[in-house]
Amino acid sequence: MKRKVFFLSDSTGMTAENLGRSLLAQFPDISFESVTRPFIDSPEKAEKVAAEVNEDARQMESRPIVIDTIVREKVSSVIRAADCFYIDIFSTFLSPLENELGVCSSHTVGHPAIFREDNQTVNKAYMHRIEAVHFALANDDGMHLHRYDEADIILIGVSRTGKTPSSVYLGMQFGIKAANYPLIPDDLELNKLPPALADHQRKLFGLTIRPARLAEIRNERKPNSTYASLRNCVDEVRQAESLYRQYRVPYIDTTQLSIEEISARMLQRAGIERRVASL
Amino acid sequence: MKRKVFFLSDSTGMTAENLGRSLLAQFPDISFESVTRPFIDSPEKAEKVAAEVNEDARQMESRPIVIDTIVREKVSSVIRAADCFYIDIFSTFLSPLENELGVCSSHTVGHPAIFREDNQTVNKAYMHRIEAVHFALANDDGMHLHRYDEADIILIGVSRTGKTPSSVYLGMQFGIKAANYPLIPDDLELNKLPPALADHQRKLFGLTIRPARLAEIRNERKPNSTYASLRNCVDEVRQAESLYRQYRVPYIDTTQLSIEEISARMLQRAGIERRVASL
Repeated sequence: MKRKVFFLSDSTGMTAENLGRSLLAQFPDISFESVTRPFIDSPEKAEKVAAEVNEDARQMESRPIVIDTIVREKVSSVIRAADCFYIDIFSTFLSPLENELGVCSSHTVGHPAIFREDNQTVNKAYMHRIEAVHFALANDDGMHLHRYDEADIILIGVSRTGKTPSSVYLGMQFGIKAANYPLIPDDLELNKLPPALADHQRKLFGLTIRPARLAEIRNERKPNSTYASLRNCVDEVRQAESLYRQYRVPYIDTTQLSIEEISARMLQRAGIERRVASL
Repeated sequence: MKRKVFFLSDSTGMTAENLGRSLLAQFPDISFESVTRPFIDSPEKAEKVAAEVNEDARQMESRPIVIDTIVREKVSSVIRAADCFYIDIFSTFLSPLENELGVCSSHTVGHPAIFREDNQTVNKAYMHRIEAVHFALANDDGMHLHRYDEADIILIGVSRTGKTPSSVYLGMQFGIKAANYPLIPDDLELNKLPPALADHQRKLFGLTIRPARLAEIRNERKPNSTYASLRNCVDEVRQAESLYRQYRVPYIDTTQLSIEEISARMLQRAGIERRVASL
């Protein structure tokens, strides 16, 4: 069984995609084929997509599913009229919200975190995210800068535990300044915190991983190396975890977690609020 | 007027936050104060949050708004009973979807792109995203590697037009391998494509920005420098745009766009499908 899905939006399409995929994940036995059509912000563009939807309905066994975050009624009504199963996310929730809040919604296209020169608050929150991404890159892999005073959190762990993507994600999504420092064998042998980290103990967060999975990942990068050998991975992980326990560094096993989950769990454990609006 | 908002989830909370913020952005005259409570995956944890919601309802003038993506009824029913205006995203859409698809939803907690060892497809899509993030970092700012054969897209532009965060976002969100190359004054003076880019013309995508905004951004970084001067910014932007036109490189003005918008527009213009499921 295969169903075609359209994610439609008058903006980037991220909300329709994110919510849509979460909903569809609840039907693991059905195979979905999805396309995203962003920036559908006029009745003319909507007509084009509606034609595409109708064409798919003719060709496939079952009508397409449309998941739609188009705000303006004049545009979304064109899609609604097409031959599809239609989920209109905004209409569904905006009316009840209007009642609860006692005001009309603005029905404008746009997002809270977009940079606009006429809105200094939003501008600031957005610039904070961009700054945090640059911070993550400048402080990746224990690089020279060591602006650890500025860091909100410092991720530590052996090579390939997910430090870099997690640091970048924390900046991108939440505006959290995350540095990361790789625990290399020289650090681990000493069995104490590397000097660069010693002054920042309360900002540290450890990542760990199951040795067998680590060996797999490292083998893709450097096949048949000592670095990737299971024996070495077992040793490094054991030493790193012992270091975390010794210095009471909170840590998390990333083996089965996505960067979204790693990041959300770290913020929760470290008690850091998600302080910047993301899109 | 100020309203308290809770984003609740049995997973990372990203879907509740993303959709919730989009909805609330439609009420620009109301000031919202939001907190996110992820991983609410048991009735006990739900009780704790419900108590927090009730406490807020007692203290504030109006009851809190709760935006909830908790899948299991046993958990979400605890929240539903609290004193709040309750938006239950999953229940609202899952029943109609079950009817349309003719199957029951799995009502399981989780997301499509999470790494699971028992599911090779999901695993692969997720690893693709992580690989693309590493690719963006290794090919940032015209760095030595030049793995441009592997790149899906190569972003070019003068310093501080948003190339780096956009490249990382494309990898993180869509698994698109984006390299980026800064057009430095030496490149611009020659008035032709830098040699490193000449073989990859069809992958190029230009970023531009209004000179006044560029000067502002650069002044934050290097105050009162030639680099940040308006005259220099005007020149660099003019030369870069002239290069784009000369080589028919598609380009986009990033002045008022967020990285989400820049990325969505680039993919659309470049005709690149969003091929990897994001959370």
